[in-house]
Amino acid sequence: MSQKPSIPKGTRDFLPEVSLRRAYIFDTIRTVFEKYGYAPIETPSMENLSVLTGKYGEEGDRLIFKILNNGDFLKKAKHLGDPQKLAYEICDRALRYDLTVPFARFVVMHQHELAFPFKRYQIQPVWRADRPQRGRYREFFQCDADAVGSDSLLFEAEFICMYDEVLSQLGLKDFSVRISNRKVLSGFAEAAGCQDHFTDMCVAIDKLDKIGAEKVISEMEGRGISPDSARKVMELIGFEGTNEEKIAFLRKEFATAPTGQQGLDELEEVFETLTYFSVKQAKVPFDLQLARGLDYYTGTIMEVVTHEIQMGSIGGGGRYDDLTGLFGLKGLPGVGISFGADRIYVVLEELGLFPEIGGTKTKVLLINFGEGTHEASLKALAALREAGVPAERYPGTDKLKKQFGYADKKGIPYTLIIGTEEVNNGVYQLKHMKTGTQHGYALHEVVAELMEGQS
Amino acid sequence: MSQKPSIPKGTRDFLPEVSLRRAYIFDTIRTVFEKYGYAPIETPSMENLSVLTGKYGEEGDRLIFKILNNGDFLKKAKHLGDPQKLAYEICDRALRYDLTVPFARFVVMHQHELAFPFKRYQIQPVWRADRPQRGRYREFFQCDADAVGSDSLLFEAEFICMYDEVLSQLGLKDFSVRISNRKVLSGFAEAAGCQDHFTDMCVAIDKLDKIGAEKVISEMEGRGISPDSARKVMELIGFEGTNEEKIAFLRKEFATAPTGQQGLDELEEVFETLTYFSVKQAKVPFDLQLARGLDYYTGTIMEVVTHEIQMGSIGGGGRYDDLTGLFGLKGLPGVGISFGADRIYVVLEELGLFPEIGGTKTKVLLINFGEGTHEASLKALAALREAGVPAERYPGTDKLKKQFGYADKKGIPYTLIIGTEEVNNGVYQLKHMKTGTQHGYALHEVVAELMEGQS
Repeated sequence: MSQKPSIPKGTRDFLPEVSLRRAYIFDTIRTVFEKYGYAPIETPSMENLSVLTGKYGEEGDRLIFKILNNGDFLKKAKHLGDPQKLAYEICDRALRYDLTVPFARFVVMHQHELAFPFKRYQIQPVWRADRPQRGRYREFFQCDADAVGSDSLLFEAEFICMYDEVLSQLGLKDFSVRISNRKVLSGFAEAAGCQDHFTDMCVAIDKLDKIGAEKVISEMEGRGISPDSARKVMELIGFEGTNEEKIAFLRKEFATAPTGQQGLDELEEVFETLTYFSVKQAKVPFDLQLARGLDYYTGTIMEVVTHEIQMGSIGGGGRYDDLTGLFGLKGLPGVGISFGADRIYVVLEELGLFPEIGGTKTKVLLINFGEGTHEASLKALAALREAGVPAERYPGTDKLKKQFGYADKKGIPYTLIIGTEEVNNGVYQLKHMKTGTQHGYALHEVVAELMEGQS
Repeated sequence: MSQKPSIPKGTRDFLPEVSLRRAYIFDTIRTVFEKYGYAPIETPSMENLSVLTGKYGEEGDRLIFKILNNGDFLKKAKHLGDPQKLAYEICDRALRYDLTVPFARFVVMHQHELAFPFKRYQIQPVWRADRPQRGRYREFFQCDADAVGSDSLLFEAEFICMYDEVLSQLGLKDFSVRISNRKVLSGFAEAAGCQDHFTDMCVAIDKLDKIGAEKVISEMEGRGISPDSARKVMELIGFEGTNEEKIAFLRKEFATAPTGQQGLDELEEVFETLTYFSVKQAKVPFDLQLARGLDYYTGTIMEVVTHEIQMGSIGGGGRYDDLTGLFGLKGLPGVGISFGADRIYVVLEELGLFPEIGGTKTKVLLINFGEGTHEASLKALAALREAGVPAERYPGTDKLKKQFGYADKKGIPYTLIIGTEEVNNGVYQLKHMKTGTQHGYALHEVVAELMEGQS
């Protein structure tokens, strides 16, 4: 009774080549996180459902994957006709929906074990029951770094450097870390006289890229912002110039907007700190049109885009006043960023920026010539590995064509030929698969040759 | 409305120090896997429930974490009174229970994209609704390597070397890779005249360590094996001697046991191949009492134990004839091993074998002296990072005691003191936190000093 197997919609298998490329991205991010003093933590895949419920809005609650209780899960069930209520009676746990809420829960539970400001990174999968579509999956990795317990703007400047380092190392040349500040957005509302509709204004501005200026104005008006105010907001965010010119322009416009002025102070401090660091590739424009959807942010906001290819943001983050209040620990501010690893993968692939990784780390395949060559071949294999060279021997005595085909298909760069003749004269043939060139070497020369360029 | 948060029973948070130690174990295993030609794959955390059901026995099925369908999951529900049946109506997906069944599913689905023999490793979490107890968790990582599509015994010999390399690198000195072969066990049954009760015999032998010889005999008799046969089996597995003596002894005893002879042939081939490799620390005893619970295995079986501390097996594996038959792909043999990472963690911890990892990779903390020192301090920070030295600056101007305390608590080995005086004379004080010694250096000397020993 066999079955034709499949995997759940919105999930993925990763074959070696893709898995190694993903590891290359994660390793690059991890190394930069650690260089800036961020340390890894891990939280369980499943959280108590009560920890997650109500943190992501009504829509979010629906998209949480809930785990059925084991054993007689119906024992406590009262709402057998109502799936919405029943779900909460028969499921105590759920898969994490993001890394932020579990991190907040972690900080509260372990507050007495942590050194503050606590700088953590976390690279783990999350799950969302979203409708799958191109580039949107039900299981995907998030790569987050946060610094909590400090309001120093040093972190903001460092995060920009971290984006710059990671993306430069991955080979991107033309990208921007767009930056603004929620207090500057407050300033817009103050200056335009629509402070009461601050969130409405942000939501509308956030759509500018997608729907254009006219519709943003209608959206604001539809949400109760006066036409005058709406026009003023559009005028402010439409100003073009250098970062300095934008700040100078807003300094004047914010004459009666103290929160806006504070936002500009913070931005200037970040820009000043950046002058001491060497930003390699990133442009860092003060983006008056940046809003970021989340209510959550209270200070700096940033968003990363590449200009080399059409793609949404490949990273983003911001500062928040209160990470852990929901779990009873008040007054813990912080700032965090996230890398969109799946999108970065697509960018590197489409731009041809992945280094030659192939589907294996194996450097050389020892061709198997069977009887009479085993001893020499196995000793060579041992010598190569002893020297740290990833090596395999083809396990059977299949036809040579098949053996070389195996090296090709796996992307193994070299093959080593040790047939009867080679055993007799002690000269082994090392073949470079791509060029087809072949040279005779003594074993120690083969080892030396293959150790070169071995990281 | 705050809530005191907690995590589900049997799951764990990992703080930085533990997370870094876990990474150290995984990285060691990964590097050895890759050196021997194994390539990583990843499969989704959730599989279709039908892929998992029936693969782990009745008990296993109960321990699978099922994921509630989203939306109106009651639509198709017919068995509202029967939790056992209802679970399968309202859950289409479940969390993977091990890495083997998903791997089999993967090989079948991707058979035309893979180069055979396919050598994969997989380091991913699995979930089991087992009753949590000391050392047993509901979420834990498995680290598996398998070679499928070949019956070459080279792989067995290599797996022994891989255990040897990983555990030696981790600092273990006294451990064994016990080895036997299911065909040798068949030989016991043949020689003792209880072939009809082969599985019963294996199940009983598997308990020898726990319940002792007398009870194993009763167990065999209780399972329908004659007292004579049971005694004969115990006599055979009780033989003591070197590997050669054991093989010679069984060669005679297996006079009329052809399968047993074949098992001995295979064992001898593995031992012979091993003579060409350099096994560093592992003892490799032919263990006549090794049975391994799983029906699944058909050839070589192995199990790894350390003698330095009381602990169950820290690894194991074996050869199987048919990985993928259940999913419709017949005749694909293979062999695989697994590392018990959680147990290895405990072993390293109790033996004090972890290298000094601490809770961070940061090498130096720049003490913050505030006003007048920012520029020098930030430039030093940038120079250190530019040179690849993981470095942080304390973000606020808290009291020095607090700043040094932060370095201590995080385990940062050095602090760098750049106060007004240091700015003026250009000599910075580098303090080694453990010894308390402190020296004055120019910036480029600080960088050079900290780059040393930087991997």
